[in-house]
Amino acid sequence: MSRQVVSLGLVQRACSSDRKGNLVGTCEAVREAARRGATIVVLQELFDLPYFCQARDPAIFDLAQPLDGATVSTMSTLAKELSIVVIVPFFERRASGLCHNTLVVLGPDGVRLSTYRKMHIPDDPQYSEKFYFAPGDSGFRPVTTPFGRLGTLICWDQWFPEAARLLALANAQILLYPTAIGWIEAEKAQLGDAQLDAWKTMHRAHAIANGIYVAAVNRVGIEEQGDSKLEFWGHSLVCDPAGRIIAEAGESEQLLVVDCDLELIEVQRRWWPFFRDRRIDAYGGLLDRFSSGEK
Amino acid sequence: MSRQVVSLGLVQRACSSDRKGNLVGTCEAVREAARRGATIVVLQELFDLPYFCQARDPAIFDLAQPLDGATVSTMSTLAKELSIVVIVPFFERRASGLCHNTLVVLGPDGVRLSTYRKMHIPDDPQYSEKFYFAPGDSGFRPVTTPFGRLGTLICWDQWFPEAARLLALANAQILLYPTAIGWIEAEKAQLGDAQLDAWKTMHRAHAIANGIYVAAVNRVGIEEQGDSKLEFWGHSLVCDPAGRIIAEAGESEQLLVVDCDLELIEVQRRWWPFFRDRRIDAYGGLLDRFSSGEK
Repeated sequence: MSRQVVSLGLVQRACSSDRKGNLVGTCEAVREAARRGATIVVLQELFDLPYFCQARDPAIFDLAQPLDGATVSTMSTLAKELSIVVIVPFFERRASGLCHNTLVVLGPDGVRLSTYRKMHIPDDPQYSEKFYFAPGDSGFRPVTTPFGRLGTLICWDQWFPEAARLLALANAQILLYPTAIGWIEAEKAQLGDAQLDAWKTMHRAHAIANGIYVAAVNRVGIEEQGDSKLEFWGHSLVCDPAGRIIAEAGESEQLLVVDCDLELIEVQRRWWPFFRDRRIDAYGGLLDRFSSGEK
Repeated sequence: MSRQVVSLGLVQRACSSDRKGNLVGTCEAVREAARRGATIVVLQELFDLPYFCQARDPAIFDLAQPLDGATVSTMSTLAKELSIVVIVPFFERRASGLCHNTLVVLGPDGVRLSTYRKMHIPDDPQYSEKFYFAPGDSGFRPVTTPFGRLGTLICWDQWFPEAARLLALANAQILLYPTAIGWIEAEKAQLGDAQLDAWKTMHRAHAIANGIYVAAVNRVGIEEQGDSKLEFWGHSLVCDPAGRIIAEAGESEQLLVVDCDLELIEVQRRWWPFFRDRRIDAYGGLLDRFSSGEK
């Protein structure tokens, strides 16, 4: 069996209200990742903006851009210059009154290989995403790049085993989760450790259940919006197909460049061949919202 | 909101070839659990037998019993005497040439409340279960007991997020996994820690993704069958709906009695209401074996 190693770059950064500054700083980090050998670089959710969903403000829709807007165009030029794949999450304006939490996968020629529009949309205190983003209609389909088949998802998707499974069943090799998650001040002392640990655990479980690589890229820093404040917890990470965390960032700005040996997917699935034993005849209820059926 | 606390007993034991001895010893442990306040007691997979699936031997089918056989009858008498619920996994003979890896849930009056026949059947080196057990046809349905709604699964099921999700969507409050899992001698040094950690991680992830209690009851001890040898790793555990491990056994015989506050299910799901946001319109591929569809 041939050995295929992919070098994955994860750009974990703090964001300010200076959009241009966020973009320029991120481009520098992408260049550095490429210098260190990364062929696939993943940016964090809504990477060039503060996480603006702490409050509902119709004026914020002015920040949305089309698929060929300035943010994507800048990253497209950079991907082509560096001959790498870049995963670019951004605030997409699709039409009047129709915006998405979107990412595009840009190929090493700068061309857009795929578009993913976040499918699972949260609406929790300080995460008012249902106000800004329509639920995606892109479904769960991996994209083939010169450096591997990628399954792209965004943040809240990470709590849904269905999304990870669907991408693995569609032959993805690496799941990528651009993310913006952090602590709410009032909860941190009591729940902070458990929340972070649960978040890491879900990524590991997706890796294990599917025998697949999983990477998440989170932002860091404290962001305020009106009376709200979020402390983004960082801890961007990569899990191997056995669910081991093979790289993990801290809670400040950091660039991870991580080798992923795709051959380990084959090794892991020979040990634990879960796909062989799925009971697809008995999973119909997964398409229901709820069932009160008991026995 | 009313507070409902369930006391869960987990009986982690070593098994010998003395079936009667296994049964008597387990009955003593169940009595002890009840004395300590447990109202639901869970036994390990195939609790009254050595884990006989290390080899394929047609003579072993002699050990299978019907639903009203000696093993279940003994436990039924005990459940009634103690007025508790007992989960009894056993080697079921359903008909000539048709056996299952089964469990029954016995109510506090000794009556069988439900039957679960293991749905996902492994067939790995030293776990030759496909030789002995037909895949179950019971599906994934919780059972209502006087002490809570239980979702019962068995061992290999724990690697399948689908099974946990289906039971949670059918309103289970606690998932119970009688188990027989251990280390193969040749692998332990290299893979042992990762295997145990992956196993624990999956239970935690089921708890988190579904906002539900999860408990697993594993056996301990070294068992030999022909040239094969397995070292069962114990570590029976209970996870709360936030995925925190609230009780965990070691690697020798142990009885855990653990309080589960079912109100925490409501609390957890208000924080992280994943059921609200599932994309049931886009999950159809979960009913496929595989999909090579890419974009």
